[in-house]
Amino acid sequence: MSWFEESIMARKGVAQGKTLETRTITEAEQGDYPYIYTAGIDPVLRVDPGTVVSAETHDAFEGAIQKETDVPTEILNFPFLNPQNGPIYVNGAEKGDTIAVYIESIVPRGPQPRGTTVIMPEFGGLVPTFETALLTQPLPEVVRKLDITVEEGTKWNDQISLPYEPFIGTIGTAPEAEAISSLVPDYYGGNMDLPDVAPGAVVYLPVQTEGGYLFLGDCHAAQGDGELCGVAIEHPTVTTVRIDLIKNWSIRTPRLENKDFYMTVGSARPMEDAARGAYRELIRWMAADFGFDEIDAYMLLTQCGRVRLGNMVDPKYTVGASVLKSIIGIAD
Amino acid sequence: MSWFEESIMARKGVAQGKTLETRTITEAEQGDYPYIYTAGIDPVLRVDPGTVVSAETHDAFEGAIQKETDVPTEILNFPFLNPQNGPIYVNGAEKGDTIAVYIESIVPRGPQPRGTTVIMPEFGGLVPTFETALLTQPLPEVVRKLDITVEEGTKWNDQISLPYEPFIGTIGTAPEAEAISSLVPDYYGGNMDLPDVAPGAVVYLPVQTEGGYLFLGDCHAAQGDGELCGVAIEHPTVTTVRIDLIKNWSIRTPRLENKDFYMTVGSARPMEDAARGAYRELIRWMAADFGFDEIDAYMLLTQCGRVRLGNMVDPKYTVGASVLKSIIGIAD
Amino acid sequence: MSWFEESIMARKGVAQGKTLETRTITEAEQGDYPYIYTAGIDPVLRVDPGTVVSAETHDAFEGAIQKETDVPTEILNFPFLNPQNGPIYVNGAEKGDTIAVYIESIVPRGPQPRGTTVIMPEFGGLVPTFETALLTQPLPEVVRKLDITVEEGTKWNDQISLPYEPFIGTIGTAPEAEAISSLVPDYYGGNMDLPDVAPGAVVYLPVQTEGGYLFLGDCHAAQGDGELCGVAIEHPTVTTVRIDLIKNWSIRTPRLENKDFYMTVGSARPMEDAARGAYRELIRWMAADFGFDEIDAYMLLTQCGRVRLGNMVDPKYTVGASVLKSIIGIAD
Amino acid sequence: MSWFEESIMARKGVAQGKTLETRTITEAEQGDYPYIYTAGIDPVLRVDPGTVVSAETHDAFEGAIQKETDVPTEILNFPFLNPQNGPIYVNGAEKGDTIAVYIESIVPRGPQPRGTTVIMPEFGGLVPTFETALLTQPLPEVVRKLDITVEEGTKWNDQISLPYEPFIGTIGTAPEAEAISSLVPDYYGGNMDLPDVAPGAVVYLPVQTEGGYLFLGDCHAAQGDGELCGVAIEHPTVTTVRIDLIKNWSIRTPRLENKDFYMTVGSARPMEDAARGAYRELIRWMAADFGFDEIDAYMLLTQCGRVRLGNMVDPKYTVGASVLKSIIGIAD
Repeated sequence: MSWFEESIMARKGVAQGKTLETRTITEAEQGDYPYIYTAGIDPVLRVDPGTVVSAETHDAFEGAIQKETDVPTEILNFPFLNPQNGPIYVNGAEKGDTIAVYIESIVPRGPQPRGTTVIMPEFGGLVPTFETALLTQPLPEVVRKLDITVEEGTKWNDQISLPYEPFIGTIGTAPEAEAISSLVPDYYGGNMDLPDVAPGAVVYLPVQTEGGYLFLGDCHAAQGDGELCGVAIEHPTVTTVRIDLIKNWSIRTPRLENKDFYMTVGSARPMEDAARGAYRELIRWMAADFGFDEIDAYMLLTQCGRVRLGNMVDPKYTVGASVLKSIIGIAD
Repeated sequence: MSWFEESIMARKGVAQGKTLETRTITEAEQGDYPYIYTAGIDPVLRVDPGTVVSAETHDAFEGAIQKETDVPTEILNFPFLNPQNGPIYVNGAEKGDTIAVYIESIVPRGPQPRGTTVIMPEFGGLVPTFETALLTQPLPEVVRKLDITVEEGTKWNDQISLPYEPFIGTIGTAPEAEAISSLVPDYYGGNMDLPDVAPGAVVYLPVQTEGGYLFLGDCHAAQGDGELCGVAIEHPTVTTVRIDLIKNWSIRTPRLENKDFYMTVGSARPMEDAARGAYRELIRWMAADFGFDEIDAYMLLTQCGRVRLGNMVDPKYTVGASVLKSIIGIAD
Repeated sequence: MSWFEESIMARKGVAQGKTLETRTITEAEQGDYPYIYTAGIDPVLRVDPGTVVSAETHDAFEGAIQKETDVPTEILNFPFLNPQNGPIYVNGAEKGDTIAVYIESIVPRGPQPRGTTVIMPEFGGLVPTFETALLTQPLPEVVRKLDITVEEGTKWNDQISLPYEPFIGTIGTAPEAEAISSLVPDYYGGNMDLPDVAPGAVVYLPVQTEGGYLFLGDCHAAQGDGELCGVAIEHPTVTTVRIDLIKNWSIRTPRLENKDFYMTVGSARPMEDAARGAYRELIRWMAADFGFDEIDAYMLLTQCGRVRLGNMVDPKYTVGASVLKSIIGIAD
Repeated sequence: MSWFEESIMARKGVAQGKTLETRTITEAEQGDYPYIYTAGIDPVLRVDPGTVVSAETHDAFEGAIQKETDVPTEILNFPFLNPQNGPIYVNGAEKGDTIAVYIESIVPRGPQPRGTTVIMPEFGGLVPTFETALLTQPLPEVVRKLDITVEEGTKWNDQISLPYEPFIGTIGTAPEAEAISSLVPDYYGGNMDLPDVAPGAVVYLPVQTEGGYLFLGDCHAAQGDGELCGVAIEHPTVTTVRIDLIKNWSIRTPRLENKDFYMTVGSARPMEDAARGAYRELIRWMAADFGFDEIDAYMLLTQCGRVRLGNMVDPKYTVGASVLKSIIGIAD
C-alpha cells in the first residue's frame, strides 16, 4: 500500500491515514436506516479520525424485493429508497474541513447473497421519467435476482458472469441547511453511483457542518457506466471504511484518489454541466496543490484528462474527471 | 370576480373560495424567516381553509443590501437567501390534497419603498455558475437600488420606468421527507420566479404532508421572462393571500388558474425537461378534468399551447404551460 | 403603417422599405421545391431590393398527406420534408449585409383549404426521438385534416376553433459553405417555427454569401408555443413578402421587428442555450444600436425581457427574446 | 491479428477484410482539402472494397498556425477548419450498405513533426461559445507548438510527456442531401473526436448515397476525454486505412469494433442525448446481431456498459457506448 502513504489522506489527515480504533454499525446498531442526508438526525456513531467502521448496509430496496415475481411499484414506497448507514459524527470536523474515507473492503452479506436489478416505470436512462416527461407507455416491470459470490461474481445467465467489482453507490456528508433525499447526488456526495468509489480508493468529502455527518449505503456488486436502467446489481454488504479528517482543506465537491489518479466529481443536469463542473474543479485542484497555471492545466487536460460517467439516471447526472498521477506527479 | 366563482378553488375548496377569517404574519409574528422548505419547522400560523393571510415579506436579501456601493459577496451568506414567511399549517390538509392560494394583493412595504437588483459572481443566466462551471472571469458586481411606487412602477432611469407588476417569486408546500433551500423550485413549488403567480391568480400546490406547510416570499416588483441576471426587482411587501383546501385532488406539481387560462408548472434542467414536464401535466389535467383524450390534447396544445419562461437562473429552470379557458372551456 | 416608417428596414434599407416592383413564384415557376438551404441551387428568382414577391407555398408534406386514413410513415420520405420556395437571389447582397423581409400577408391556398397535423414516430416534444433516443414504443400514428378559413380559422371540432394566425415556419438565407436541411433552424434562420414571423413583422436575416439566397416555406395556420407534437396546422398558402437589403449591417443570427418589439432569435440545444443565445444577441443589439451599456441592458432585460418559445421539436430548439419598443425607444 | 479474422469486416466485407490493392492520397493528389461532408464534390479517388489508402492529412488548421506567437483569430477563417482528405468513392456502395474502415496506422508527417494546440475565443468546453452564449470576457488566446515523436510522444514540458496515441478526429461518409461542415459530428460520423478511432480499430459508417463518399482528417497525437479546450494535439500525418464494403447491413450511426469491444457512437446535445443515442443503438445491435432480447440487453448494459466521452466542445457532443466482446461473445 505504498501509494497510500503518499496519499493526501496519509499526509494531511489528523490520524495520518492510520487505523487507531475499529467500530461496527450492525443492523441492530443502526436501527432505522435514514433516507435523507441531513445533520438533523442523531448520529448513530461518533468517531475520532483514525477509526475503521464496518457497516452492515442494506440494498437499495432495504431487501423488500425478494423474488422475480415481485412487482416493484406494488412494493416500493418512493422516495423511500436507498437506505443509508449513519450518520457518523466525526469528532473535530468543522465547516471548511474535509473528511477522508479510505474504502478497505466491501463483501456481500447474508448466507446466500443475491443481487437485485429491476426495471420500473419512470426510472432509467432510456425511458420517460419524472424529469424527462414523455407520453409513451412505460416498459414492463422486470425483476432479476442474481447469485453473487466474491470469486465468481454475478451470474447473469449460463453464458455470462460479471466479475464482482463492488463499490459504494451513495456516500456523502450532510448539507449545511438542507435535508436531501439519498436518491440525489450533489456537492456533498450522495447518490453518485460512481464505480471508482471502490475498495482501494480514498473519497474526500466536504464538511458543511460540525461533525460532518457521514452517510453511506447502496452498494453495487457490478455496474456499467451510467447505470443505464437505473438499478445496478443492488446487494446488502459489510462495507469497511477508514475515516480520517483533514483540517482546513476546503473542497467544494467530492474528490477521489487511488493508486493511479486524482479525480473530481460533478453532479448536475444537463450532463455537460456535470462534466464542466468536474473538470473545472480538477483544474482548480491542479492549480492549488500541484503547481499548475490554470490555463496550462486546462490545455493539458485537453490532451490527457479522463472522464468516467457515474450515473445518467439520478436527479442529477454524475461525472468524474481525472488525471493520472504518472502525469502530474505528487503535491509538495 | 365572476370568473373566480367558476374557479376550481371556488367550486371544490372546503371553504368554497370564501373568506371566513383574516390573519396576519407581521415581521414580529414571523420572527426568524426560514430559508428552507420543510415540515420540520414549527408553523408560524395554523389556519382553517377560508383564511386570508397578510404577510410582511422581506426582499430576497432580507434587506441586507442597502445602498449601491454595497458589495453583495461581502454581505450575503449563501445559501441563506430568499427568506420566507411561514410555514402556515392548513388544518385538515393531508397528503393527496391540494392547497389553493388566491393572491389578493401585493403592495410595497416601507415608507420609501426601494427595489434592489444586483449582479453577483456565479449567478445569472449569461454568466458561468456553480452549475455551468466555466473558467472565464465573472462580471463586476453591481447593485442597483430603485424607487418603486404602485402608480409609477420602478424608475429605472430618467427615460425608463417599468410598470409595477408584482408577483410572488417563491411559494410552495413542504416536501414529504426533504428540507429544500428556498432557492430551488421543484414539484412542491418553491423558487419558481414565475410572473403569473400574481394578484388575481389562484395557485394550486400539492400537499405532501399533514398540514401542507405553506411558505411564501421573494416578491418581485417587476421581472422579465427568465429573470435573466438572476435578480429581479426584489422588494419587501405586504402580500395578502386567501387559502383554501381541496380534499382528494391530488396534483403532482404546481398548477395555476386565472381569468384567462389554466397553467401547469415544470421545474427541471435542461430547460426542455421543464417544458416537457409542464406540458405533460397539462395534457393529463385536460384528460382528467376536461374530457379530452390524451392524444387529442397533445395535438391541440401543439396548435394553441402557451409557454411562459419563469426562471433560467435557479438550480432548476421553471416553465409554465397553459391553455386558454376560451378554448377548452370549464370542467364540470 | 406609421411604425413601419420608423423601422430599421425603412430607415436603412436600400429601397427604404418601399415597394418598387412585384413578382410571383407560382408552383409552375418554382418547379422543384428544394429541401435544403444552400447557395448551390440556381435561384428561382433574382430581385432588386424593394421587390414584393408572392410565393405559392406547399405544406410541410408537399401535399402528400391527403386524408385522415393516410399513414405518414408509409407516405413520407424523411428527410425530404419542408419543401421551400426559392432560392431568391437579392441583387447587391454581400456577406456582412442583412436581408430584410417584411411579411405582407399569408392566405390559405386552394379552393377548399385544409390544414394537416399528424403524430408520427420519433418526432415530437413528448415522445422519444432520434435525438432523445429511448426504448419505449411510439404513440400511434394519427392524421388530422382540418378546414381552414381566414375568417373562422381552423375548425378543431364542433366546440373548438382556433383563430387563423398564420406565420412562416421556415425562412432564411443560405449558409456560406454548408447545405442544411429545411428541417433545421440555425444562425441563418431556417425551420424556426416561431409564431412571431407573421404578417406585419420584419425579419432580418444575415447574408452569408453573394445574393443571400432567400428561402421560405412551411406556413402554419395556427401553432402553440413549442409546436408540441412537431406538426402545426400545415397548409399551402400564397405568402407575400417585401424584400429589402441593408448594406453593411452585419447580424449574427435572425432578428425581428414589429410594431411592438425588437426580437432576437436563438436556435440551439439544450433549450437554455437557445435562450442564452437569443438574450446575448439582444443585449449586443441594445448596446450597438440603442445606446445601452451591456451590463445595464443585461439588468434591464432581467426586469422586462420577453421570451417566446418557437419550437421544442426540431433538431435545434428556437427561442425568441424581445424587448418592447415602448421601453427602449427607437434608434437614431 | 486473429481477432480481426472474426471481425464483422472480415466476415461480412465484400473483400473479406483483405488488402487487394494500395493507393495514396498525397497532398498533390488531394489538391484542395474540403471542409464539408457532401456527395457534391468530385471524388479524389475511386476504390474497390479491399483497397488500402494512405492519405497525407493536414492538421486542423491546414498548417496555418506555425509559431507560438501566432494569434489564432488573426489567422483562422472560421468555419474553414478541419480540412479533410477525400472524398473517396467506394465502388458498389449504395444507400443501406455500410463502409468498413480498418485503421492500419497513423504516423506524424514532416521532417520535424510538431503538434499544435490553442485556446481561442468562443471555443472550448469551459468557456462561453456561440452555442453557450454568455457575457463574460474570453480567455486570452494561447498557442502551444509541441515536438512529437512516435517513440517519445508529445513533449509537454520538461517534466511531462504524453504517449503518442494517435487517432482520426474526423471520419465519415456524405449525408444524403446535406453538405455539413467538417466541424460537426453526426449520424454519418464527421468530427467525432473519439480516441477509440485509432490504429487497430474498425469503424463502420452508414452509406447514405451511391459511392458512400468517405472523408477523413483532423488526426490527433493525443487527446483526453472530451477534448476539453477544443483543440487536441493537432498534427499532420500519413494515415493508412483499409476500406471494405458490407452490403445490405444498414446502420443508423457509426459503430466501431476492436479486439476488445463493440461500440456505438452518438452525437447530440445535450450530452445525455448523445449517451442515450449511443446506448439505444448498442441495445438494438445486441438484439439484431447477438441474440439478445432488448430488455435483457438494457439490463445487462446497466451492469457492464462502458462510456467514452469523445468531445464536449463541438456543435454536437460525441459519446461512445461499448460492451466487451468477452461478455457478449461473437455474432454468428
